[in-house]
Amino acid sequence: LIKNAVQATRRRPSRTAERVLIDIGDDAAAWAGSRMVQLATTDCLVEDTHFRFAWSSWEDLGYKSLAVNLSDIAAMGGVPCFVLVSLSCPADIDAAAVMRYYEGMTQLASEHDTAIVGGNLTSSPLVISTVCLIGEAEQGRMLLRDAAKVGDLIAVTGTLGGAAAALSLLSTGQSPETLPIDLITRLTRPCAPLAAARDLVQEGVRCAIDISDGLLSDLGHICKCSNVAATVRGDRIPLCPDYDGPVELRTAFALNGGEDYELLFTCDATTADRVARRLDCPVTIIGEITRGDSDQPVSVTGVNSAIITAGKTGWSHFNQ
Amino acid sequence: LIKNAVQATRRRPSRTAERVLIDIGDDAAAWAGSRMVQLATTDCLVEDTHFRFAWSSWEDLGYKSLAVNLSDIAAMGGVPCFVLVSLSCPADIDAAAVMRYYEGMTQLASEHDTAIVGGNLTSSPLVISTVCLIGEAEQGRMLLRDAAKVGDLIAVTGTLGGAAAALSLLSTGQSPETLPIDLITRLTRPCAPLAAARDLVQEGVRCAIDISDGLLSDLGHICKCSNVAATVRGDRIPLCPDYDGPVELRTAFALNGGEDYELLFTCDATTADRVARRLDCPVTIIGEITRGDSDQPVSVTGVNSAIITAGKTGWSHFNQ
Repeated sequence: LIKNAVQATRRRPSRTAERVLIDIGDDAAAWAGSRMVQLATTDCLVEDTHFRFAWSSWEDLGYKSLAVNLSDIAAMGGVPCFVLVSLSCPADIDAAAVMRYYEGMTQLASEHDTAIVGGNLTSSPLVISTVCLIGEAEQGRMLLRDAAKVGDLIAVTGTLGGAAAALSLLSTGQSPETLPIDLITRLTRPCAPLAAARDLVQEGVRCAIDISDGLLSDLGHICKCSNVAATVRGDRIPLCPDYDGPVELRTAFALNGGEDYELLFTCDATTADRVARRLDCPVTIIGEITRGDSDQPVSVTGVNSAIITAGKTGWSHFNQ
Repeated sequence: LIKNAVQATRRRPSRTAERVLIDIGDDAAAWAGSRMVQLATTDCLVEDTHFRFAWSSWEDLGYKSLAVNLSDIAAMGGVPCFVLVSLSCPADIDAAAVMRYYEGMTQLASEHDTAIVGGNLTSSPLVISTVCLIGEAEQGRMLLRDAAKVGDLIAVTGTLGGAAAALSLLSTGQSPETLPIDLITRLTRPCAPLAAARDLVQEGVRCAIDISDGLLSDLGHICKCSNVAATVRGDRIPLCPDYDGPVELRTAFALNGGEDYELLFTCDATTADRVARRLDCPVTIIGEITRGDSDQPVSVTGVNSAIITAGKTGWSHFNQ
């Protein structure tokens, strides 16, 4: 059944599908190797921790489970290729729900010429969706966290804070029907910035991260990996237009909310100019990379300091 | 922290570790590609569905999470290379427990020159361990489910039923301390048959599966994929010596219990002879591939029919 559901990712002509040698149904998937740099990432969405069925459908879950991984491959400057899916759900779940999950994922996979080649289904009291995505990049043209240089400008694609605003409103009991659909979609079906990342690579950008934890937190990762510091103009952050709350709250969501899946990147001013002209989405310069290697490498100017620490949530990962 | 815990998988000289370009800590892992056939598999262990902390330690969980995936790569005739880990556990879990999980996995990874290159940690009310393993094989020398031929002998490596016996005893309340340690180990730390699989490939075997669901069920997969039937001599099954229960029960566990992670393979008699002489572990001929493509392709002779259906448990996967 799953094999049928994902066949849309095998539509020819497809560079990726043509490489598939062994599909779902043997002990492992198999495909033709290549000399490109191989990329791999995995992400896990847990019911009631990362999503709720109150505002996320099974299609949304399938879609987002892949989208967050696509975003990681984009943030490396790579092309996504092969997907493995591990879905755990209660044993009495409707088989049609599982098919809708795979349909949501298949839709997004097809848009990016990505083949779902393996999957397993296990029983668990709550729904957990784990996707592993394998992609490819060109050696020497990857987007890395450790490539920021003192004097680089800091820029972001798109607008920030929408997903966090939606999550905040929905979590505090607001009904999905009363919210703008575009705002909910930012939370439930994020866009992976693959096209933007491809353009960044071609324009010579070498330092980027996708904004999943939150702008300040993810910029902190870049600073730590690159042994630099950063100054951010808090009043320059491009705010999500789909949420009409007070500007302080919108700014807090944009700084710390996370799940935007936009690209945060650094480069020199000339490159930033070229990138801004080339990309289809907004590109906003929000600050500058400076010297420094402190534990608090990111400073924010132009906004009240209460905003900067507001909206920090989630549990600290052991691996950070 | 996790990065430190898995450094043992980077010990040089290591063919795999030398290929790693970007380790844990960027948006995705990266390694040098190759022209070999690429294999990928994922498996998920859910607390209280697939394991219990009453008889499985955190080290055991890390070890087994990788072992079941190694077994899938073995069953394809491949060499394991790169591991991605997705661990979900309660937010208040002891960080030392997570380290023990990674240590158990690292121990096994090191034994097989396999590098843990990525991982993520998420919060969930119960522990779920998902591993994705990428390996390599030679084109034309893979072990496939669809390669059984009428007249082939059916053989298995090792002995069967130990893991199921251990699970049955532990699930019905027997204390781990009262059971032979070797029996519990079959459940908590299964051996992935990588060395045996390598020998099978070199001797010309082309059809194999690892016994994870159970001998009869997994043989059914081979029959279905190869459009053949199979006759099994129930009284020839090599029974696990670490469980001293009645032979009827030992046989039922061996036929239907699953989680043995031994290899089930088919080949002609001459090849089977060569394999039996070459392998370090026992190789037992248990039956023959016959013509047929029915819904019930596997028939068992030599044992009471009640034994054949006993011990079938678990929920039917949608994807079968």
